[in-house]
Amino acid sequence: MSNPTVISIDAMGGDFGPSVVVPGVALAATELAARNIRFLLHGDAATIRAELPKRGALLSLIEVRQADGVIAMDEKPATAMRRGKGSSMWNAIEAVKNGDAHAAVSAGNTGALMAISRLILRMIGGLDRPAIVASWPGMNGATTVLDVGANIDCDAERLVDFAIMGEAFHRAVHDVARPTIGLLNVGSEDMKGHQELQGAHKILREGALPLDYRGFVEGDDLSKGVVNVVVTDGFTGNVALKTAEGTAKFIATEMRSAFTASLGSKLGAVIAQDALRTLKARLDPNAVNGGPLLGLNGAVVKSHGGANALGFSNAILVAADLAQSTFADEIRANMERLTNVLAHAPPEGASS
Amino acid sequence: MSNPTVISIDAMGGDFGPSVVVPGVALAATELAARNIRFLLHGDAATIRAELPKRGALLSLIEVRQADGVIAMDEKPATAMRRGKGSSMWNAIEAVKNGDAHAAVSAGNTGALMAISRLILRMIGGLDRPAIVASWPGMNGATTVLDVGANIDCDAERLVDFAIMGEAFHRAVHDVARPTIGLLNVGSEDMKGHQELQGAHKILREGALPLDYRGFVEGDDLSKGVVNVVVTDGFTGNVALKTAEGTAKFIATEMRSAFTASLGSKLGAVIAQDALRTLKARLDPNAVNGGPLLGLNGAVVKSHGGANALGFSNAILVAADLAQSTFADEIRANMERLTNVLAHAPPEGASS
Repeated sequence: MSNPTVISIDAMGGDFGPSVVVPGVALAATELAARNIRFLLHGDAATIRAELPKRGALLSLIEVRQADGVIAMDEKPATAMRRGKGSSMWNAIEAVKNGDAHAAVSAGNTGALMAISRLILRMIGGLDRPAIVASWPGMNGATTVLDVGANIDCDAERLVDFAIMGEAFHRAVHDVARPTIGLLNVGSEDMKGHQELQGAHKILREGALPLDYRGFVEGDDLSKGVVNVVVTDGFTGNVALKTAEGTAKFIATEMRSAFTASLGSKLGAVIAQDALRTLKARLDPNAVNGGPLLGLNGAVVKSHGGANALGFSNAILVAADLAQSTFADEIRANMERLTNVLAHAPPEGASS
Repeated sequence: MSNPTVISIDAMGGDFGPSVVVPGVALAATELAARNIRFLLHGDAATIRAELPKRGALLSLIEVRQADGVIAMDEKPATAMRRGKGSSMWNAIEAVKNGDAHAAVSAGNTGALMAISRLILRMIGGLDRPAIVASWPGMNGATTVLDVGANIDCDAERLVDFAIMGEAFHRAVHDVARPTIGLLNVGSEDMKGHQELQGAHKILREGALPLDYRGFVEGDDLSKGVVNVVVTDGFTGNVALKTAEGTAKFIATEMRSAFTASLGSKLGAVIAQDALRTLKARLDPNAVNGGPLLGLNGAVVKSHGGANALGFSNAILVAADLAQSTFADEIRANMERLTNVLAHAPPEGASS
């Protein structure tokens, strides 16, 4: 039997810590039973063990490693980098660096996770900062959207980096040979949008990069799935993601009352319940939880801080897919091509 | 009987022109029957008359004025300003300036409408550019969101202008004595967001303005309705609005298949149809259509270019509410207070 794939887990991260993380690992282990995967849990060993079953097949798949510190959900990234050594998050990432694990998952503080991952794993050559990617449910399956929260200000070169990372991610994880790419804007005409978007549009449109760039897309194209990969800055991406989540929740609430109004309260409630359950499986953020941090020398997946056990297990599935994919090699190959292109003809507007 | 309120209509604007606009006027006229409102339609008189009924009470409420030009949906704002004189859009706005009408409605080109409105009506003293406002459906009724598409780059002072305009709008139109205000960001902590947001947050938080500012809000707070007025730049606002529309459409599609799956195809389709109709009345962009351009010396309302007759009639209802409200006076009073505040203590970060 070949060597197992090991997923390193920050067992103390998130709003609920081990009480959600450990059951999440158990769910993922069942789901991944056929794929030869083991788990390395970092955190307070006694607390973690209290959440584990006393016997059973699961125990043979799990190794618990004591870590004394926990990075608080509101810790500033700079403080986390200075004082985070030895914490559960730090050790979870370091296990990837050391080769003890193939991917890491944390539901902890996003800024701290980005900073510590970048410090320990370093960026793939030529890339500046990690981006967080979301798999956006839509009419054509999942759309890859990035960045959804890591980088507030993005210049043209950063947006082009995201296109390269997102394309490699989509091909490796969703198995699409030549993913299509769009830049999120407020209209599809060439003249639309701010200077950074214009700059990225120019570089991508010139076609020197091996990418299938389709131009600008708009907010409603995210669910329509008109392209496989949508590139945006982390501010806009985060607002869009949370707006979509809020809209979905609001509609679910309205739907319940629409049913009650049109079918009478009892029958309406029963039918709404049933339809909502089916719908929820497609739209629940827990069902699509797990945002990989792209661009690092190593796979790191961010789970929602408030995810439940099912949500956390989904983040682990994403990590397993990443660990067993060619994603990092894809990015590296694209970056080499980009470096060649930029070295020979530095495009205007790329350095705004 | 007191003098009627007159609404000036760009009858040639939008994707469908008079074939949608004129039936939209008819719907609005019925709805507004008790409010002593007349309509002034600008455009090709023969085409407009062909869409009007041959007789009936409606005709006595409508005056048609010949206008020869039409501003194309893809015309650049600068060109529209230079060559737009005498077009249906131009004349619709000019009627407000001349005192022939109390508000104007157009489904035409947004950029051209902004530029021509600003040229003809001028901004209220102290304000720089109009903002387009959306009434966002949510758990607590409508949230006022601005800007949703007019201004791509906004500095701190521009965002504070939007807070002042949005607050006055919400009070005048939704009859809330002291509307609460939030700034759209990617987190609620003080340190979050880019420099322009930080600057606006500082000015608003200092409390020298007579506004009930509650701090940062996030994308999912738009539907939750945690504040009455959400302020953002036109880029983020436009992406958020279109993302919400796309999400709502996607969910409606999914809902239909969820019903079919859980109830069997025939019964499922019937019940989905019924519930969707109720839901649609709350969520259909046509039901909430009509984005006022705030900050002008005069009321101008932008309708979606692709709105149907019901949608266009809703934009007319918004214009009627604006025309019969104290909204412009509210903004003027707030601006005077702001000018006094800024003259005495120019805040840091306000001029970024």
